[in-house]
Amino acid sequence: MLQRRLLHTAKACLNKPLAPFTSTKYPKLKRNPCYSKITDKDVEHLRTFLTSSDLIYEKDPESTAIAHLNTDWFNLYRGSSSLCVFPKTTKQVSQILEYCHERQIAVVPQGGNTGVSGGAVPVFDEVIINLSKMDKIRHFDPISGVAIVDCGVVLEQLDQFLEPKGYTVPLDLGAKGSCQLGGNVSTNAGGLRLMRYGSLHGNVLGLEVVLPDGTVLDNISTLRKDNTGYDLKQLFIGAEGTLGIITGVSLLTPKRPKAVNVALIALESFEAIQKAFVLAKDHLTEILSAFEFWDQDSVGVVKSQLMQKSKYPLEGKHAFYALIETQGSKREHDETKLLEYIQLLMEKDIALDGVMAQSSDQIKTLWAWREKIPEAISKSGVALTYDVSMDVPLLYKLVKDTKEYFSKKDMLGPGKVYSNLIGFGHVGDGNLHIMANLNKTDSDGLKLMDEFIFSWAMKNKGSITAEHGIGVAKVQYMHRARSATQLQLMRTIKRAIDPKGIMNPYKVLPE
Amino acid sequence: MLQRRLLHTAKACLNKPLAPFTSTKYPKLKRNPCYSKITDKDVEHLRTFLTSSDLIYEKDPESTAIAHLNTDWFNLYRGSSSLCVFPKTTKQVSQILEYCHERQIAVVPQGGNTGVSGGAVPVFDEVIINLSKMDKIRHFDPISGVAIVDCGVVLEQLDQFLEPKGYTVPLDLGAKGSCQLGGNVSTNAGGLRLMRYGSLHGNVLGLEVVLPDGTVLDNISTLRKDNTGYDLKQLFIGAEGTLGIITGVSLLTPKRPKAVNVALIALESFEAIQKAFVLAKDHLTEILSAFEFWDQDSVGVVKSQLMQKSKYPLEGKHAFYALIETQGSKREHDETKLLEYIQLLMEKDIALDGVMAQSSDQIKTLWAWREKIPEAISKSGVALTYDVSMDVPLLYKLVKDTKEYFSKKDMLGPGKVYSNLIGFGHVGDGNLHIMANLNKTDSDGLKLMDEFIFSWAMKNKGSITAEHGIGVAKVQYMHRARSATQLQLMRTIKRAIDPKGIMNPYKVLPE
Repeated sequence: MLQRRLLHTAKACLNKPLAPFTSTKYPKLKRNPCYSKITDKDVEHLRTFLTSSDLIYEKDPESTAIAHLNTDWFNLYRGSSSLCVFPKTTKQVSQILEYCHERQIAVVPQGGNTGVSGGAVPVFDEVIINLSKMDKIRHFDPISGVAIVDCGVVLEQLDQFLEPKGYTVPLDLGAKGSCQLGGNVSTNAGGLRLMRYGSLHGNVLGLEVVLPDGTVLDNISTLRKDNTGYDLKQLFIGAEGTLGIITGVSLLTPKRPKAVNVALIALESFEAIQKAFVLAKDHLTEILSAFEFWDQDSVGVVKSQLMQKSKYPLEGKHAFYALIETQGSKREHDETKLLEYIQLLMEKDIALDGVMAQSSDQIKTLWAWREKIPEAISKSGVALTYDVSMDVPLLYKLVKDTKEYFSKKDMLGPGKVYSNLIGFGHVGDGNLHIMANLNKTDSDGLKLMDEFIFSWAMKNKGSITAEHGIGVAKVQYMHRARSATQLQLMRTIKRAIDPKGIMNPYKVLPE
Repeated sequence: MLQRRLLHTAKACLNKPLAPFTSTKYPKLKRNPCYSKITDKDVEHLRTFLTSSDLIYEKDPESTAIAHLNTDWFNLYRGSSSLCVFPKTTKQVSQILEYCHERQIAVVPQGGNTGVSGGAVPVFDEVIINLSKMDKIRHFDPISGVAIVDCGVVLEQLDQFLEPKGYTVPLDLGAKGSCQLGGNVSTNAGGLRLMRYGSLHGNVLGLEVVLPDGTVLDNISTLRKDNTGYDLKQLFIGAEGTLGIITGVSLLTPKRPKAVNVALIALESFEAIQKAFVLAKDHLTEILSAFEFWDQDSVGVVKSQLMQKSKYPLEGKHAFYALIETQGSKREHDETKLLEYIQLLMEKDIALDGVMAQSSDQIKTLWAWREKIPEAISKSGVALTYDVSMDVPLLYKLVKDTKEYFSKKDMLGPGKVYSNLIGFGHVGDGNLHIMANLNKTDSDGLKLMDEFIFSWAMKNKGSITAEHGIGVAKVQYMHRARSATQLQLMRTIKRAIDPKGIMNPYKVLPE
């Protein structure tokens, strides 16, 4: 399988100076005085059922032992918690929450801490409940393909477990080597396989959740169809840990594909990409597993930063590139379909050039030009990253409009506020990533770019976060991204399930 | 496309004597005195914004004009409402609910009224809000395949609209000619294509919902990925109209398959069916669209009631039959895969015999032997029907155990309490249907069979309703089918969203 470990490089960040406190970054956020502060007595109580190695208590949140648990993977958000607990069982999670609920102590659930919206680290002094030690694969049924796992099982670990059984996980992420199933479900992770296998709202069959007061909701089901009352698990998928802690996941896993084929094509416009995409849905239909695109500037950044010695797989310079992947059960059938499809694109002058990988090494090389984009731009300087979704025809217009807007203001270009503004993403999911280097970090650059891109997305009925979630990073935009009615209903649910508000505060729902 | 209109035959039931009132059938159900009774003044108010043709008011609930709206399709449940309204717009639905909320008048939303659990008809005098006049297809995007429709659009109507555009609906039901999208979503309909296209929790992209107090929740999205706060639409999928009225649906539709192939095989045991199913997932993987099974007795009932003159497609008598359907984008590839698969089953002695349809007529014939089972047993006498799901290896054990249990009690066989006890269903979804004729309707036959089958399913971690829903039919089993914690959380949600309890009372959640 392809290794997609881009996010791992971010671990190096921890050698850099620690990020500023999130509360400094967002001065409007104030600690809610209703929450009790952790005392030695609290820790004493928790130690009655947690061993000493399952609890870190450091009054100085900058001390090495707890600093990395307070800080997110990208070193962008930092809290100041003095306490992190590592429960090993659902019962311990329940005991922790029961106690925190009684004392009204705020908590933040943490999985692999690979999120990019600051959702899995404290903002102030919330107790960190790190789920890494809940890492058992509980059960797998080879007939149905249903796996039941602890929340702390790492995505790649599950995939490796499934491989010899002929199954695979229905989602694939850059962070697969570190992210955990509980976190994936809590953030409703999308990833690279969504267009083929669908979202977690469809693939998760059941959840075990510890509710804010410590009650264990055993909603683990292995049934594909079950309409016995409200589908409670759905509440917790994508709730970013604000309604409870997911401790167990029942997941429907698909059969592992026997054949993977990849082609790269060059195109001259985003209109051509759309045409190619429509034809891919028509001709590759059930075997189409990814349809990714990137622009010429993305190639330039990858080449200059990470692939200086590599020859680009296609000759000449073209405005756009698209990578098309198929996954199927019979290699020769899939190859025929993909080849006929590429030929059709050439005949219709939709693709200007194209190449089909002939080996798994070539597959890796083609994917590398897509996958190395975020790493390359991060290497090139301070990187801004956006994750929006919208109707496919609009996807690249946002990139063009952003370029035009900041060029007119004389803010875009080498040595200016921004450089390397590029667009790439998952055409199949209507999901665009825009990245740029921010060259003047003391300017309003972040704020201005946020404002332009989020406003544009909202004006065009897009989403300000396709898959990364709200966390603390975008909570200040929720008032504009969601209607008063939507926000009110979200608050109604939050209050009904977590009346004391101890679960992951300051995230998702604005004040 | 295959026509699956079994449920339509049930329309004839309305010529029979009207069903007993649901409140007579379930004497423990009492009208909640908190609800206001409809007065002439209420109707007068509703007439200020509804035309005379959009409202039926009959003080005698047995009068022809309103009796069929009070009665379910199968003539099993009957309410005594004097008022049915037919709003044409979301605004009218909002006005109706706002008024009913203020006056605390209970309501029941009604779509195509094809449900089989009594969820879409009143129990007492709830106002019927029939959505049939909200039947516009609002928008379709040929690039993404996303359709936005009014709740009252009939499933087949949408499929016919999509056909020339090369798309299809991701669910297929017997009732497709009458059931409506809003009702499909409200009951989380599963149907015949679930194993291929997944559940509505994955395929519904957005909903417009009128909340119990008349507030319109505009949550219509066309985005495949959107993690902007809680995924509110999920609350209403499968809530059976107890939390609000779905007025608009945004649905992701898949490409229409270019090739459909069907094979029928004979097997000697349910273990062989499981082996065949595992191999089908392995060899047909992405093109497998249905894996149905039935037993020898099912064939007997169909033959004697509806297909006397038809020759069964396979020679001899076998214990089990399985129908395997593929849907794909290239006929010759799919045929090769299916043929190789059938040959493999024969070589391994898993299948004893097999046939592959050579034309669309033959496809219809093979399906007919599966699809006519419910109709045949209904024709053969009063029919009991069950819809349970469980782990695949257990599916047929329930049928065997049921037969054994009632045989020992000397209650099963020609002229006894039950006859024609048969099992069939969707192996791919772990979904079993058990049906039987109840020959002595004045006995405890219904109650005893309910108790045996539901207890067995619950004991074996199965679901008492895979896809039909709870409605009023199974509400008395909810205490046993769901834990106290699950029920409490369901009630918490219900109270938070519908504090006056006006939405579809007496259904889903027990007192």
